[in-house]
Amino acid sequence: MDDSTREIEHLVNLMAKLPGLGPRSARRAVLHLIKKRALVMTPLANALQNVAATARECVNCGNIGTQDRCDICANEKRATGQLCIVEDVADLWAMERGQAFGGRYHVLGGTLSALDAVGPEELRIPKLLERIRAEGITEVVLALNVTVDGQTTAHYIAEHLTHVSVTSLAQGVPIGGELDYLDDGTIQAAFKARKQF
Amino acid sequence: MDDSTREIEHLVNLMAKLPGLGPRSARRAVLHLIKKRALVMTPLANALQNVAATARECVNCGNIGTQDRCDICANEKRATGQLCIVEDVADLWAMERGQAFGGRYHVLGGTLSALDAVGPEELRIPKLLERIRAEGITEVVLALNVTVDGQTTAHYIAEHLTHVSVTSLAQGVPIGGELDYLDDGTIQAAFKARKQF
Repeated sequence: MDDSTREIEHLVNLMAKLPGLGPRSARRAVLHLIKKRALVMTPLANALQNVAATARECVNCGNIGTQDRCDICANEKRATGQLCIVEDVADLWAMERGQAFGGRYHVLGGTLSALDAVGPEELRIPKLLERIRAEGITEVVLALNVTVDGQTTAHYIAEHLTHVSVTSLAQGVPIGGELDYLDDGTIQAAFKARKQF
Repeated sequence: MDDSTREIEHLVNLMAKLPGLGPRSARRAVLHLIKKRALVMTPLANALQNVAATARECVNCGNIGTQDRCDICANEKRATGQLCIVEDVADLWAMERGQAFGGRYHVLGGTLSALDAVGPEELRIPKLLERIRAEGITEVVLALNVTVDGQTTAHYIAEHLTHVSVTSLAQGVPIGGELDYLDDGTIQAAFKARKQF
């Protein structure tokens, strides 16, 4: 085995560590990259290097940016008094794609979990309480995943917040959803929260 | 949107172009990379840059290596007189993982296809005929995919080879295969090729 075969194998092994790629799809991706070297591989290598060098966590909310404060925390137009709590940066991105929310975010970095020994201190919850005082927050929107851990965390946070309005995303039938394919819990939640048509 | 958000979006877009990754899994992969910066992201960027800079096609067989001739073509121990024909480098890697074959390879770079206007000239077939003469090949093993295009190409090659023995991989029930899950064609092929137990 020559050096290049080792280099390529090394690259395949690294690619296979990405979520969503196994060894087989990593090999396919690497061959695709080698074939499209100028068009995809070199730009991808450069983009990875750039992001690796510049990306950092916002000290305020936990979002990812290049500065100490991310562009959302630095944007004065978003000082609306509303604060949206999400588990992860991916959820923040999803909320931003939805374009429904104009305030700022607070990224917990996970959920409370007795099993994994994740307590409030591990979750940027002290920072959350500090921000609510410092930024004049009037409404906290809980946008946590509708999972056991997500909802446990939501309840914990709601219990510890005083003097602010606490709301959470509505639960119900998703847009495009077919009842036949929905789980019982969603049907129950949607029925309970039914509204005048 | 600040520069970093643009950089990250650019990286997500590039990742989403890889086979097997869509926009959603590309976002997940990028967040994973940013979290594991030192452990995965920087090594991946370096490995991509290395391979992009050094990988090239073997002038003899079409495999990927760092030299004009790949390590298999350069390895004198593999001058066994056997030549294995594969469609793609991925198939060559699969054969090598099988560790059943000790000779050299010839990568066609695709299959004949009237629809896509792929003729023998596009497929490194002239080079194949030249190699058979030059390298004293006595047996050509056809390891093409068992698809319509793959088998058309296999027949075309077999018709144009004289003075060498032409074999092909056996067709039948795969190891671990359950009859109930196999298609009719495989069952028929396996029955026709049945052998004394």
